[in-house]
Amino acid sequence: MKKIKRALISVSDKKYLKNILTILKKFKVEIISTGGTFKEIKKLKFKCIKLSNYTNFPEILGGRVKTLHPKIYGGILNIRKNKKHLKDLKKNNLKDIDLIIVNFYPFEKIVQKTTDHKKIIENIDIGGPTMVRAAAKNYNDVTILTSPHQYLSFVNQLNQNNGSTSLEFRKTMSRIAFTETAYYDALIANYFNKISNIQFPKKKIFHYKLIEKLRYGENPHQQGAIYSLGSSINLNQLHGKQLSYNNFNDINAALTISNTLPNNTGVVIVKHANPCGVSIIKDKLKCYKSALATDPISAFGGIVLCNFKINLKLALELNKIFLEVIIAKKFDNDALQILKKKKNVRLIDSSNFRFNQDSKINLFNDILLLQNEDKIKFKTKDFKVVSKIKPNYQQMKNLIFAFNVCRYTKSNAIVLAQNESTVGIGSGQPSRIDSCKIAINKMKKFSKNHYDIVAASDAFFPFVDGIEKLVQSGISAVIQPSGSINDKEIIKFANDTNTVLVFSKTRHFRH
Amino acid sequence: MKKIKRALISVSDKKYLKNILTILKKFKVEIISTGGTFKEIKKLKFKCIKLSNYTNFPEILGGRVKTLHPKIYGGILNIRKNKKHLKDLKKNNLKDIDLIIVNFYPFEKIVQKTTDHKKIIENIDIGGPTMVRAAAKNYNDVTILTSPHQYLSFVNQLNQNNGSTSLEFRKTMSRIAFTETAYYDALIANYFNKISNIQFPKKKIFHYKLIEKLRYGENPHQQGAIYSLGSSINLNQLHGKQLSYNNFNDINAALTISNTLPNNTGVVIVKHANPCGVSIIKDKLKCYKSALATDPISAFGGIVLCNFKINLKLALELNKIFLEVIIAKKFDNDALQILKKKKNVRLIDSSNFRFNQDSKINLFNDILLLQNEDKIKFKTKDFKVVSKIKPNYQQMKNLIFAFNVCRYTKSNAIVLAQNESTVGIGSGQPSRIDSCKIAINKMKKFSKNHYDIVAASDAFFPFVDGIEKLVQSGISAVIQPSGSINDKEIIKFANDTNTVLVFSKTRHFRH
Repeated sequence: MKKIKRALISVSDKKYLKNILTILKKFKVEIISTGGTFKEIKKLKFKCIKLSNYTNFPEILGGRVKTLHPKIYGGILNIRKNKKHLKDLKKNNLKDIDLIIVNFYPFEKIVQKTTDHKKIIENIDIGGPTMVRAAAKNYNDVTILTSPHQYLSFVNQLNQNNGSTSLEFRKTMSRIAFTETAYYDALIANYFNKISNIQFPKKKIFHYKLIEKLRYGENPHQQGAIYSLGSSINLNQLHGKQLSYNNFNDINAALTISNTLPNNTGVVIVKHANPCGVSIIKDKLKCYKSALATDPISAFGGIVLCNFKINLKLALELNKIFLEVIIAKKFDNDALQILKKKKNVRLIDSSNFRFNQDSKINLFNDILLLQNEDKIKFKTKDFKVVSKIKPNYQQMKNLIFAFNVCRYTKSNAIVLAQNESTVGIGSGQPSRIDSCKIAINKMKKFSKNHYDIVAASDAFFPFVDGIEKLVQSGISAVIQPSGSINDKEIIKFANDTNTVLVFSKTRHFRH
Repeated sequence: MKKIKRALISVSDKKYLKNILTILKKFKVEIISTGGTFKEIKKLKFKCIKLSNYTNFPEILGGRVKTLHPKIYGGILNIRKNKKHLKDLKKNNLKDIDLIIVNFYPFEKIVQKTTDHKKIIENIDIGGPTMVRAAAKNYNDVTILTSPHQYLSFVNQLNQNNGSTSLEFRKTMSRIAFTETAYYDALIANYFNKISNIQFPKKKIFHYKLIEKLRYGENPHQQGAIYSLGSSINLNQLHGKQLSYNNFNDINAALTISNTLPNNTGVVIVKHANPCGVSIIKDKLKCYKSALATDPISAFGGIVLCNFKINLKLALELNKIFLEVIIAKKFDNDALQILKKKKNVRLIDSSNFRFNQDSKINLFNDILLLQNEDKIKFKTKDFKVVSKIKPNYQQMKNLIFAFNVCRYTKSNAIVLAQNESTVGIGSGQPSRIDSCKIAINKMKKFSKNHYDIVAASDAFFPFVDGIEKLVQSGISAVIQPSGSINDKEIIKFANDTNTVLVFSKTRHFRH
C-alpha cells in the first residue's frame, strides 16, 4: 500500500475531473497543475499549486516546456526506500510526487481531422508521455492514471485503503500506461511512414484497439478476439447472437468479393471462407436465386451478402434455408421483421463499411508476411484476346465477372459462370485440373443448361489438360493469366476447338 | 539547411563514437554529455561539457534523473524563427541544442537475457526516449540520431553541407526516431502483458523487424516483405534463389504440420499451402516415397519438408522431380552436393527453427482477428471409441496421424491414411461430402491397395452420407469430432458396417 500525498494533474480530457478532485481533497492530497488543467481546477474551486511556482521555473516556449524539470522527475522517479535517493531529495529540496494523472494531446483525433502537417506536429505531446513513462517505471511507489475510465476504480482504491493504492492496482495502471505511450508513438511513427510513403519500414509497429473478445477462436479450444484500427468495425449488427470468429472470417471473404461488384448489385454466398455462389443479376430475387443455385447444398449454414437493400420478397426467400449471417446495405422494415423471426440468423447492416486498408498480414510463429491486398479493379483493356474467335460483349462481361470471383477463391481456383452468375466453383486444390473437375461437377449437378458458360482460372494452365477438360464439358470461353511454357499449345487448342481465350497479365493466387 | 553548433550525446551503444566526435570537432560543435558517454569522450581525448555543469543541477537518484531539465528541453524544443521562443531563451539564459545522439538502455536484450523483474524495470529508459521524442518533434530545427547505422550518412551530410544537415535528412531521422520510441514502449507494454498473462489487452501493439523485402507478394502486382519478432527467422538457406512470398507461405504450412510429427521422422509435401502428402514411416527413403505417392502429380513444383537429416540416397530420389523448396534438419555433405546441382531448388536448413509463438492473425481491411494457434498435442486418451469394434494399435496410430494432418489442411478437410502415410487428401471445399469424394478419388487414382485405410475429418459429419461414401470406398476406421444432431445415426451406421468410429472432443477448422 502506498499513501498518496502529492499529485500532478495535466489532462487534455477533463471529463470527471471533479470526481478526482473531490476524493483527493478528502484524503488531503496536495495538487500541482499547469495550463488548462490548472484553470479548470480553479474554476471548480479546488486548491491547486501552479507548476511553475512549484518548480520555480517559468512555463516557456508557448507551453512546449512546462513539466520537464528535475523537481518533478526527482519527485516521481525516486525509490522511496532507497537511502541514497532520500539523501538526494533532501539535498536538492525535492518532494515526492505519488500520483500522476495525465492524458496526451489528442494526436489521433487531429490526424483524422486535418492534413495540416504543422498542426499535427504541434500535437505531438512531449511532456505528457515522459511523466506517464516515469511514473509507470516507478509503479512500485507511484500511481499513474491515463484515462478517465480508470477514475472509478481509483476512487474505490482510495476509499477502501484509506488514501492508499495497492501494488497490484499500480502495476495494472503501469501496464496500461506503457501500452498508451507505445500506442501514441506507433500512431506518430505510422503517420510519418504514411506521409513519407514508406510501406516496409525497418521496424513495423501495428496498433489495434480491442472491439470485443469472441466466444472462442476458429475452434472452441482456441481463444479469439476482434481488434480494429479504428474504434469501430463499421458493421452494424441488427439481430442475432454474437458473431463468431468464423462468422467474421466468412464476412471478410464476402466483403472482399463484394468490392468487385457493380454498385448496389450482386449477391455473394460464402462457406468456409470460399465463395460458393455469386451473381450480379440486377433483379434482387433472381440474383440471390442464381447465386444459391451454384451449390444449394453447400450454401446451407453459409453467409449471404447482398450488395443492396433487402426487400420483403427477398427476405421471404432467404428465410427458406438456414443461414448463419445475412449482410446487406440496409433492410426494408418489413423485410427486417420477417428475417428477425429466425432466432439463429445474424443480420448485419454494412452500409457504413468502407474499404480503406491496403495491407494483408500472414503471421506464423515469429514470422510475419506483409503484403498489399490484391485489389486492382479490372477494365476490359487489361485483357488480351489471344484466340481467333473474339468474345462478344456478354461473354466478356461474364469472363470479367468470373475472373473477379476466381481471384478471391482459394488457389488453385476455377470459376464457371453463365448469365452473370457462377455455376461452378473449384477451390483449394493442389492441382489445377482437380479444381476444373470440381467446378465442372458442380455445374453438371446443379445447372439446368450448359450453354454459354465461361471459365476463369486464377493462374495459368500449366498444360492443355485443364482447358481441354473445360471445353469437353461445354465451356465456350476461358480467361486465364498467361505465363506457361505451354501457352502456345493452349492457344492452338482454343483455336482448334473454336473457344474464346483471353489472357490477363495479372495472376491472382490467394491462399 | 540547419547549422549544428551544439550537440548532446548520451549513448549506450558506443560504437563509432570516435567518427562522430571527429566530424563534430571539424565543424567546431560544442558537445554536452553525461555518465558513461562523458567518460568515453574524455578517454578519446575530445572536449566535452559535463551535463550537470551545463544545467547547474546535479545528476541525482543514481542516474535516474540527469537530462530532464528545462535548460536541455528549452534548447531542443524552441522553434528557431519564433520570436517569442527566442525571448524565452534569452530571459532564461538558454542556448540552442541542434543535435541529439541518443540510444536507449538495452531493454530488448535484457528481457531476452534475464527474468529478474527489478533489473528489467531498471532498464526502462526515461531520459533517452524523451530527448529523442523532443528532438524528433522539432526536426525542422534539430537533428536526431538514434543508431550508429546513421553516423555515416550524417558525416556525409555535414561534409557536403559545411556543417549543416538538410531538412529531408532531419525528417527521415525524425521518422525513424518515433519508430524507435514506439518500438521500445511496445516491447515494454508486451513484457507487462506477458508477465500479467494478458492475452487480449484493450490496445494491442505488434512490433516487427524487417528481415527482407521480397521480390513481390502473393502475386507480382502486390508488394511484399517478411518481418520477424526476433532479428532472424532461424531458417538457414543453403542454396538457391531468394525465397518468394508463396515459398514462405508454403514453408509455414509445412513447418506447422511438422510440429505434430515424431522426433526426426516424417516427410511433408505442401502445395498451395495445403499438404499434398505426409508420411511418418521411419525409413527415410520409404517415407518420402509414400508421401509423394499420395498425389505425385500435384507434388510437382511443391515444397518438401524432411523432419530429419537428408542422406545421399534420398537426395538422388528428391532430384527426380522439380521441387521449389527442400527443408531439412541438416543435409549430409554428399547429399547437399547432389541437391545443389539443381539451380532452381531452394535448400533450407531448419534445425535451428523453434516453435515459440502462440498467436494467429487474420487482417482484413481495418479488422484484425487475433487467436491462439491450434497446437495441442493429441494423446490416445483424448479420443473416445464410440463403435462396437475397437481400433487396434496400428489403426489408432494411423487415425491420430491422419487427424493431425487433417487439422492443418484447409477446411472442409478429409484425410485418408494407410501404413503411417496419407493416401488421399480432400481440402478447401464448402461441403464435407465433396472433400470425401476428392480424397477418395486421389486414393483410387494413386494408391496400390485399399486395405486398412483410415479417414480423419476436421469437423463432424453433418449427415451419414459422408461416412457412407468413405465406407463404400473401403475405409475401415474413421475419426471425427462429434457434435452433429445425427451423431447417433452415424454411430449406428458404423456399427452396421463394422467400421471403427472414434470421436475427438476437439474440432479443427482451419481456413
